[in-house]
Amino acid sequence: MQGEPEVAVLRLGHRPGRDDRMTTHVGLTARALGADRVVLPDEASGPADTIRDITGRFGGPFEVEVRGDWRPLLRDWAGVVVHLTMYGLPVQEVEADVRADHREGPVLVVLGAEKVPFEVYDRADHNVGVTNQPHSEVAGLAVFLDRLFEGRELDREWADAARQVVPQETGKKVVSLDDESSGEEGQDPDGAASADG
Amino acid sequence: MQGEPEVAVLRLGHRPGRDDRMTTHVGLTARALGADRVVLPDEASGPADTIRDITGRFGGPFEVEVRGDWRPLLRDWAGVVVHLTMYGLPVQEVEADVRADHREGPVLVVLGAEKVPFEVYDRADHNVGVTNQPHSEVAGLAVFLDRLFEGRELDREWADAARQVVPQETGKKVVSLDDESSGEEGQDPDGAASADG
Repeated sequence: MQGEPEVAVLRLGHRPGRDDRMTTHVGLTARALGADRVVLPDEASGPADTIRDITGRFGGPFEVEVRGDWRPLLRDWAGVVVHLTMYGLPVQEVEADVRADHREGPVLVVLGAEKVPFEVYDRADHNVGVTNQPHSEVAGLAVFLDRLFEGRELDREWADAARQVVPQETGKKVVSLDDESSGEEGQDPDGAASADG
Repeated sequence: MQGEPEVAVLRLGHRPGRDDRMTTHVGLTARALGADRVVLPDEASGPADTIRDITGRFGGPFEVEVRGDWRPLLRDWAGVVVHLTMYGLPVQEVEADVRADHREGPVLVVLGAEKVPFEVYDRADHNVGVTNQPHSEVAGLAVFLDRLFEGRELDREWADAARQVVPQETGKKVVSLDDESSGEEGQDPDGAASADG
């Protein structure tokens, strides 16, 4: 988030078609919950476009990067590396250390899709489990970011948004920031509620 | 969780094939992060089987229910209904109220897949947004449950598990609770880390 050291999310592995929605959800969750950047594999150009499209409509800053080899990024990262894995140490035990690291510099959060090479476990400063149960890398990322930022991410403001949701007790309200027109209850913001491209 | 009023997660909508992974991740996230039960549409029998399989291997209690019509469940729910939606009120503003409700009785958390009928917004006691940004229902559920339980879910214990992950600073360790044999670093627990069926 603005005014803090960078938090980037690195997604390892992507099988086009099969993983499109999960990778899209990883990127959108990273954006919505305070990360500054997501790095996706070359194969994930479709999800990358979807995430950029949402950023264009709902605001940023948020960067989407596509690259062929993640190893140089991981090797040369000038900060702390956190690998989220169900085999790691409990998030509630290590989160204070990670927050302390983040006050000093950037954080790279690594999420696997398929089997993760051992070099990732080895390179990570923290292998962290959001529970040691099998569930979802999207869920793990969400809880990790919420705890890393201690909820500050929920109050972040968005720059250059074309539209904005206005929170409602019941129903839907979306304001277009381009032309001051607004869509009221019952309208969908052009499918914006769907994360799928 | 045991010793607390029930928390059930109701997933609305499921397109077989296309939604299989998302619905599986919803169910596994519900289980891992402290809910007692997930209720899925009839069409989601594949994800239901996957979630039951994980529960059989990694423990419970956790119930997976498949039903044709969600309307009676929603209408007759004897407790508070929380609908997670990007159009709702910010979670950080309503979570204390929901926690107070949960101390008094059961909570039904409703998650949409496609467009959610207005009757759900209308029936919900709380329409809650985990941010008002488009991201992922799995991420929203995860943050909501972590805040509802205030982290207690991370310390829950599992009954009748056949295997258990032992948290490691580096690498993987899985203990089989059936026969006392264990798999050490580098082994995969029979694909248990993958949420997919």
